Amino acid sequence: MSEQQQDIPERPKEGEQPAAGAAGEGEKGPSKSALKKAAKEKEKAEKRARLAAEEAARKKADEASDVSKEDYGELPMVREETGPRYEQLAELAAEHEGKDITQANGPKAVFRATVLNARNQSAKLSFLTFAQQEHTIQAVVAGSDTLSKQMVKFAGSIPTLSEVLIHGVLAKPFEPVKSTTVQNLEVHVTKLYLLNKADSQLPLQVADAEGRIPAEGEDNAVSNDGKAIVSLDTRLNNRTLDLTANLNHSILKIRSGVKKLFREFLEERGFLDVDVPEMLGAATEGGASVFEVKYFDKKGYLAQSPQFYKQRLIAARFEKVMMIGHVFRSENSNTNRHLTEFVGLDLEMAFNQHYHEVVSLLENLFLYIFNGLNERYKKETEHVRTVYHVEPFKLPEAGKVPRLEFKEGIQMLRDAGEEVGDFDDLSTPQEKKLGALVLEKYKSDFYVLDKYPLEVRPWYTMPTNPNAGYSNSYDFFMRGQEIMSGAQRIHKAEFLEQRMKEHPNAVDPKHPGIAPYVDAFRQGCPPHAGGGIGLERIVMLWLGLPNVRLATAFPSDPRRLP
Amino acid sequence: MSEQQQDIPERPKEGEQPAAGAAGEGEKGPSKSALKKAAKEKEKAEKRARLAAEEAARKKADEASDVSKEDYGELPMVREETGPRYEQLAELAAEHEGKDITQANGPKAVFRATVLNARNQSAKLSFLTFAQQEHTIQAVVAGSDTLSKQMVKFAGSIPTLSEVLIHGVLAKPFEPVKSTTVQNLEVHVTKLYLLNKADSQLPLQVADAEGRIPAEGEDNAVSNDGKAIVSLDTRLNNRTLDLTANLNHSILKIRSGVKKLFREFLEERGFLDVDVPEMLGAATEGGASVFEVKYFDKKGYLAQSPQFYKQRLIAARFEKVMMIGHVFRSENSNTNRHLTEFVGLDLEMAFNQHYHEVVSLLENLFLYIFNGLNERYKKETEHVRTVYHVEPFKLPEAGKVPRLEFKEGIQMLRDAGEEVGDFDDLSTPQEKKLGALVLEKYKSDFYVLDKYPLEVRPWYTMPTNPNAGYSNSYDFFMRGQEIMSGAQRIHKAEFLEQRMKEHPNAVDPKHPGIAPYVDAFRQGCPPHAGGGIGLERIVMLWLGLPNVRLATAFPSDPRRLP
Repeated sequence: MSEQQQDIPERPKEGEQPAAGAAGEGEKGPSKSALKKAAKEKEKAEKRARLAAEEAARKKADEASDVSKEDYGELPMVREETGPRYEQLAELAAEHEGKDITQANGPKAVFRATVLNARNQSAKLSFLTFAQQEHTIQAVVAGSDTLSKQMVKFAGSIPTLSEVLIHGVLAKPFEPVKSTTVQNLEVHVTKLYLLNKADSQLPLQVADAEGRIPAEGEDNAVSNDGKAIVSLDTRLNNRTLDLTANLNHSILKIRSGVKKLFREFLEERGFLDVDVPEMLGAATEGGASVFEVKYFDKKGYLAQSPQFYKQRLIAARFEKVMMIGHVFRSENSNTNRHLTEFVGLDLEMAFNQHYHEVVSLLENLFLYIFNGLNERYKKETEHVRTVYHVEPFKLPEAGKVPRLEFKEGIQMLRDAGEEVGDFDDLSTPQEKKLGALVLEKYKSDFYVLDKYPLEVRPWYTMPTNPNAGYSNSYDFFMRGQEIMSGAQRIHKAEFLEQRMKEHPNAVDPKHPGIAPYVDAFRQGCPPHAGGGIGLERIVMLWLGLPNVRLATAFPSDPRRLP
Repeated sequence: MSEQQQDIPERPKEGEQPAAGAAGEGEKGPSKSALKKAAKEKEKAEKRARLAAEEAARKKADEASDVSKEDYGELPMVREETGPRYEQLAELAAEHEGKDITQANGPKAVFRATVLNARNQSAKLSFLTFAQQEHTIQAVVAGSDTLSKQMVKFAGSIPTLSEVLIHGVLAKPFEPVKSTTVQNLEVHVTKLYLLNKADSQLPLQVADAEGRIPAEGEDNAVSNDGKAIVSLDTRLNNRTLDLTANLNHSILKIRSGVKKLFREFLEERGFLDVDVPEMLGAATEGGASVFEVKYFDKKGYLAQSPQFYKQRLIAARFEKVMMIGHVFRSENSNTNRHLTEFVGLDLEMAFNQHYHEVVSLLENLFLYIFNGLNERYKKETEHVRTVYHVEPFKLPEAGKVPRLEFKEGIQMLRDAGEEVGDFDDLSTPQEKKLGALVLEKYKSDFYVLDKYPLEVRPWYTMPTNPNAGYSNSYDFFMRGQEIMSGAQRIHKAEFLEQRMKEHPNAVDPKHPGIAPYVDAFRQGCPPHAGGGIGLERIVMLWLGLPNVRLATAFPSDPRRLP
């Protein structure tokens, strides 16, 4: 019960003098006002001591008369190994909710939970809300012959987010409880122990974290429907508290679902789940956007993609590989859709005849993910959409994913009044505009843009036909934003070397960091294609989140490293 | 057919003089011997030209008379979208192997494969071995009225590892083929096209890569059972070729199996699969073994573990989290069991009463993984064990995993004559010795050492009882080597701050990089424990591999970055 003991005012320690009496001796005597002040201080100190002694005596008497003193308080950090059987709220609700049970005949239950809310209704009655993740239940702590008013007070004063151990009896409430997820069952508390008391003053209210971030240009402080709107910065500065919100639990569950569905679909089709290095000996993909690592007395670099390694595995006869790993981009882009570290869902596969075998597989992969989210993560998706309002994601039928050639896309943009050259890469606004045009025409928020101009793609991209300037490459889009980039890769070393030299971002094929990649194609590598998917982008666009940072637990951007 | 055309000797170009006739005019005439030499050279050149012309004519005639000219040769890199239906060897074997079929009545098949071996038996007969991953089949290319000797020669000369497209007829061979996995079926080739011709001289023979690396102190060049033994260095210098070996396919399949089994077990028990950052703003775990990253104008650091982030998620009410991610250790350890980048299988969970709830879960997790490997990856495990001979892994029964307290372990070592202090951490040889003692006593290659001395564990470890000097921490061992380290963590901020200050590796709780971690425990974080598993260690010890580098596709160590 050390928490309570801290409330006792400290008595001046023996041998200590009140500060005002510390004037040096042997000098001219204290003035009259000083003496008066000293007398007053002494009186005050005596009063403090007397009050403290009375308080302690009262407390002692209270404790002696406290019939519940063993039934509440703070538990030690390490406890005995044997204990009661602990229950789960969801299971208790499934078993007992709706049954006609009272405190007199209800089942006993022991469970651990987080206090979401506690209040003293009166000296003999406190109400609490207990939570186990998204499940919440109302609890009553009612004074009686066997439950002391001290315990009632203790219970009603527990700070929000404290972790507690509850013994209680389940009963049907007088009327359904509207503010909890378990509405037809409540807990009549018999014992209540603190496992970890939260600070009373936390820098962010979890209830506030359940709301949205401000829209662009919206004042952070403005409240909407009576609720506070907490800025992204405040959230990220207090991210552990922010993550406590069910909103973030839903987002991270959906995120985990995307990974699970990705793996499920590909495993079923014989893809091997592999790991490739994220710290490399050379900045092989070129470009300035690579992070440098101090590697003993040499330099290392963080991977911008698993590209070369997944292709080397294809050359090593693995046929179909997938990998989920972190990728790092040193781009100083402070936008709502860039991160410096994100998770890439990558795959690469050998094909038999034509790279469209891979494009079809990728289309089906995405449909599997979207349908899986609709089926298995409906509750979480709907929960997030009550906070971030967005149109439901419009899906095409199986086998009917709009697959447009790049030049068709250009034509659609031109027909809509956009000025764009045949071989220009699309700007982000153009991509969004094209997404809107495709949605209008094909009723789908998901589509594929195929056969990009060769010159806007990396040198390892296979040309469709060098003279026409296009390549066997594709981007996939959700709500008009790119979520995956991929292509058929060049699988012959001589031609790869030629392209490495003649590409606008030329690379030396003999560079020791890149030679093992080029050499991989001297060992009969089959024709292959693949793609890299940004996990955070899928989550953001599926849910219509206004910022990609909301799609990951601890986001990194040029201004913030977790 | 450009490959064949390169064989035609070049005729001297018009206007070029034979070198010996290039003597300057107007000077003293050439000597008699020079004239003789020039005449000889001229004769030779004429002969060369005549032979070349004859060869070209023969070739032309050959080509004209080549009834198979459309049925073999090199295909372009990009082909038409429509093509034949491609088959899988494994499925063809399942359907047709053992049936009494001949070339006359056998089914036709089209498939893509890798040439593992090709030889010209005679001018009218070539044999090849085709592979699809671990499946291999024998092929016959027999000259006939409809299959030219040119095509027979082409087929028998295809370099190993070339990727080809085959049209053929399946038939039962005269006698079972011993050297292929499909033994009662062969292919009579009717068409054969190169998709990608491998170099004839590759720096490593795949057949050699199928063998083991040299044992410690063994000469690399020594051959064993008539097979070459290729050093680890040679393999890693040619890793794409090395990975082509089925040996490595088996190892990487088992590796993928460990991850799959890990996730399966934990998902079933409600763990959420999360991602946490691998690039951090502070070197928060202390120690010198952290890699520094140039992060724009600041410094970043690579994560040595997901420790702080998985705990913050527990504080954020996630209850049970798992993650598979890369971890980085800047230790200049050039041993057979250290990597600078490896994959960590991590989990953290809140518990109700005692941290042994988590230890029991972890024990069951490992039994699930081991039993799953025995059941689902038996073929791969046995394959690797034919190369690296090792005792089968001895498993305890469910619920009977040896769990020893650290002090019991110390006593067992002392009883066996080892000198070791009560609170000393164990050295690697001591760990191995204790593993052998446990195996002898409990007949298990897997065991848990519990309650380590507090001072040898990180400051966030929960003491069992501060006065006794032990902690609620544990290491898990396979074959006497550590594969997982874990503990109950301190879940109250004040006590954590105290331990951070008094620990031998003291840390400032106010450091901006660590404050968000400490603050996580001010919001009522429940008691929790967890662990971090080294994926490569499990694979290495399961298979008895002599070096951890063999357990990952592209290993990193202080001397080698991929």
